Amino acid sequence: MSKRKPPHGHRQSQPDSPRGGPRGQSSRRAGPGGTAAAGEIWLYGVHPVLAALANPARRCHRLLLSSDAGRRHGEALAAAMAKRGGTHIEPETELPQALDQVLPAGAVHQGLALLTAPLADVALADLIAKAPDGAPGRRLIVVLDQVTDPQNVGAILRSAAAFGAEAVLAPGHNAAPETGALAKAASGALEHVPYVQVGNLARCLEDLKAAGYWCLGLAGDAQQTLAKADPGGPLVLVLGAEGSGLRRLTRESCDVLARLPTREPISALNVSTAAAVALYQLLAV
Amino acid sequence: MSKRKPPHGHRQSQPDSPRGGPRGQSSRRAGPGGTAAAGEIWLYGVHPVLAALANPARRCHRLLLSSDAGRRHGEALAAAMAKRGGTHIEPETELPQALDQVLPAGAVHQGLALLTAPLADVALADLIAKAPDGAPGRRLIVVLDQVTDPQNVGAILRSAAAFGAEAVLAPGHNAAPETGALAKAASGALEHVPYVQVGNLARCLEDLKAAGYWCLGLAGDAQQTLAKADPGGPLVLVLGAEGSGLRRLTRESCDVLARLPTREPISALNVSTAAAVALYQLLAV
Repeated sequence: MSKRKPPHGHRQSQPDSPRGGPRGQSSRRAGPGGTAAAGEIWLYGVHPVLAALANPARRCHRLLLSSDAGRRHGEALAAAMAKRGGTHIEPETELPQALDQVLPAGAVHQGLALLTAPLADVALADLIAKAPDGAPGRRLIVVLDQVTDPQNVGAILRSAAAFGAEAVLAPGHNAAPETGALAKAASGALEHVPYVQVGNLARCLEDLKAAGYWCLGLAGDAQQTLAKADPGGPLVLVLGAEGSGLRRLTRESCDVLARLPTREPISALNVSTAAAVALYQLLAV
Repeated sequence: MSKRKPPHGHRQSQPDSPRGGPRGQSSRRAGPGGTAAAGEIWLYGVHPVLAALANPARRCHRLLLSSDAGRRHGEALAAAMAKRGGTHIEPETELPQALDQVLPAGAVHQGLALLTAPLADVALADLIAKAPDGAPGRRLIVVLDQVTDPQNVGAILRSAAAFGAEAVLAPGHNAAPETGALAKAASGALEHVPYVQVGNLARCLEDLKAAGYWCLGLAGDAQQTLAKADPGGPLVLVLGAEGSGLRRLTRESCDVLARLPTREPISALNVSTAAAVALYQLLAV
């Protein structure tokens, strides 16, 4: 199996510009009606908020804390903020109901809400050029074809972090945006695994192939199981939407198709479950 | 590793009596305010409703269908009803809003709602005595210790079906009840994998050990990985709640503890994700 040639510096966007938002730390307050201003995101819940505070690359504007959460997580919050260096955020102690007001209905915030800017875009070329931090193992990138549910995308980021995938890519016009719900399902992984929205999926797969990755699509009707089909080496794992699966053009872009060894009559797994099992097989078995 | 002795016919409950409900087919209508009468459950969504209709052991009282769902799934509904034999259910065509009214807020019903009785209890002794249908492979039972979120329990049932586990057991006083939300997350698996509510978890584990099963608890702080710790043979996979993990007494009841090979800083997986990966390792690798 020959090593493919490196790609030609194709960039999806400027690496320094935050997605859909103004530059620089904003001092704006959240608007009325519980929504963040354009280009700002409310993160919530213990794991997402602690991970975002500890990430120096995450610009944070406001931290709302219930007094109970302040007591429970005071030490962890201080440790997280120490990791981000200069930009200290002064927590604002609020009643839990005040957090409810700025967050979507039903958000399980656990007494913590953090107003942030989206993470800066990552260019595909930079991702390809750079070996993942502290991951001497196999290079593996997850590509999502029409997986748009924020719970599923967040859960896939979490499994990607747990098993050591480099990044999760999704076509920008059809990707779940970076939201509090996605970050909650990711349980902190959004700060560790680049979630990259790419312009054109077919082009992105071609660039990755040119960089030496093999593209393996997970498809329930594939002949071979994943364990048998795995070619070894740098891999792109392509996942389609539950139900409809991979689109025809995406299937045709894959070097190989494989299925998980499930049995009838309940053979189809939820896409985030399938992703976790596949990542385990590819990165840990 | 010696084969353990068979258990002593300990029954959790009478196998023929439905959980928490009257016997016999009820002709009652759902009560006002969108709730089912005591001992009845509204199932909803394409997969749960088709699987329940196709299950001769599932008593079904009413089937509400939107006209769109009737057109889309008419053939599949007829095929499912043919499998249940004598007890035909006449579908009632309704506006989607009428389904909204009998279901919990936000239920994604896809135009199908089915009023049913809960499935009959399964006795642990019967489960132990009977090899699983069409599963010549390894015997494996999943035991949940304090896993109470219906989404997680449903997702675990789905993975149990997909990889061929025999049953999912949970202590009755602290188990997620059989609901439409659990059935939706199980995507039909509730009709295929017994979900057994047991009286006393420690006693249940002793009975399973006596029947020759080894008890393996999944714990993030275990020394050995699951692949290394697996003793082979009939196995009970014990899963604790996310965050708190296995309770002390449950840990002590396990023959062996094992962890999944995840990495820091996001090493803890959601319990249903961990279950799927563990079932894959134990039943399919």
